[in-house]
Amino acid sequence: MRGGVCYAGVAVENARKVAITRWREDRAEELEDEVVREVPLTISVNGRELVTLLCSPVGLRELTFGFLLSEGIISADEPRPEVEINETGGYAQVTLARPLAPELGQALSRLVGSGCAASASFYRAADAEQAQPIQSSLKLSRPVLGTLMKDFQERSELYRRTGGVHAAGLATAAGKIISFSEDIGRHNALDRLIGEAYLRGRPLGDLILLSSGRLSSEIVVKAAKARIPVLVSRSAPTDLAVLLARKLAMTLVGFVRGKRFNVYAAAERIDAS
Amino acid sequence: MRGGVCYAGVAVENARKVAITRWREDRAEELEDEVVREVPLTISVNGRELVTLLCSPVGLRELTFGFLLSEGIISADEPRPEVEINETGGYAQVTLARPLAPELGQALSRLVGSGCAASASFYRAADAEQAQPIQSSLKLSRPVLGTLMKDFQERSELYRRTGGVHAAGLATAAGKIISFSEDIGRHNALDRLIGEAYLRGRPLGDLILLSSGRLSSEIVVKAAKARIPVLVSRSAPTDLAVLLARKLAMTLVGFVRGKRFNVYAAAERIDAS
Repeated sequence: MRGGVCYAGVAVENARKVAITRWREDRAEELEDEVVREVPLTISVNGRELVTLLCSPVGLRELTFGFLLSEGIISADEPRPEVEINETGGYAQVTLARPLAPELGQALSRLVGSGCAASASFYRAADAEQAQPIQSSLKLSRPVLGTLMKDFQERSELYRRTGGVHAAGLATAAGKIISFSEDIGRHNALDRLIGEAYLRGRPLGDLILLSSGRLSSEIVVKAAKARIPVLVSRSAPTDLAVLLARKLAMTLVGFVRGKRFNVYAAAERIDAS
Repeated sequence: MRGGVCYAGVAVENARKVAITRWREDRAEELEDEVVREVPLTISVNGRELVTLLCSPVGLRELTFGFLLSEGIISADEPRPEVEINETGGYAQVTLARPLAPELGQALSRLVGSGCAASASFYRAADAEQAQPIQSSLKLSRPVLGTLMKDFQERSELYRRTGGVHAAGLATAAGKIISFSEDIGRHNALDRLIGEAYLRGRPLGDLILLSSGRLSSEIVVKAAKARIPVLVSRSAPTDLAVLLARKLAMTLVGFVRGKRFNVYAAAERIDAS
């Protein structure tokens, strides 16, 4: 672990050994192999169950706060709610000092997700389109971009071992990764970083989001809510992600491969020098 | 397109060209590149909005039926509901000949998803654990397994062009892929196949599910509901997926690489000869 925040023991707790049969050519071998863990986390607010996330079993407190912020259930401006995590039971109990917004039940009930491509975030894409574009004078130099992605990938130990997780990181324009998270879900990895920054009182307006996964509209919307000006991925964006990023003046970089990369939106933040 | 069902024009409609800036070394080039499309599909049942999926803009009718079946909103045994698709508006209006189950609103509202790792499916994992194990004498020979995955990957044209989609397929034990679907979401790709089979009146109990993506608990639960006995992926399973597959006597194969693969559950369906 170098110069950043990391979840203690993540590589140990996040995977477990299971007995498997491995075939190579015409020979079968019984052995133990590591698979990534997946646990349910049911988040209740003021006694009402809101959602069950399927996630990696680390940083559940950070994940809970990040989910609440990303989905607009709490705001960074209000007093911090109490959150009680029951790890073995898979529960997060959130106590707000105010009632849950009455429209939220309705809003959430129509936005049930189904895996990778559905989320409560979506309808806030409409909000995002009407939000003010991100004002940030941050510049990202090309050498730093390449180094960041290399550093980011080197950290993805769990992926290398299990092939089953996505990673997200936050970095400075000077090229330092200040936080890193791995999860079986792309969105959880990002929410956990957002929750962690909130708990540290660290605004994200001067940081770069690094992602191992596809840049879908939901990732752009979550990043926009946190006012992150630059999103970088090794992978591809969707057209809706590109559209939203352009409206919000967020820089969207995809397919980073060494010194080669594509800029899909707000290319002016890439320092040409 | 060979010997299977495919969505006409999928490769054309599923992607669109956008203007990008491509950097290579110290040279920037303005050009057009293809990105995968992402559209919202809001599914209403008897006038009530249930969910908004973010999906690829093809096979929306099949996707809608597959989602309704997978999530237990309709059953294959009841009369087929009317479904009206409005492609430009992004709406699917479902009319049941009966009221929507009253508990459904409550069940769905607590199961709002957030991307890759949350879903309405999860709590049906509990149902799945109590479900009868899958009784199937299907055997999958090792040469067929290797050929199927090769064939499956060759079909993934959209991925090769845009890097932004997951694929799912259904195949016979004789090695023929009979349906194929690509989508920005892993779950959507599977739901679309399930819906298509339902509309054709084709049960899935003698077929093999091929997937490009990770095998999470939700994929296992969806496949279990459709009584698919064998799941095969190039990618990794989670521990919860392995646990469920073992309880349900579903064969779970991961990390297929030519003649090498791992069997995580119900290995007896792999023909050792």
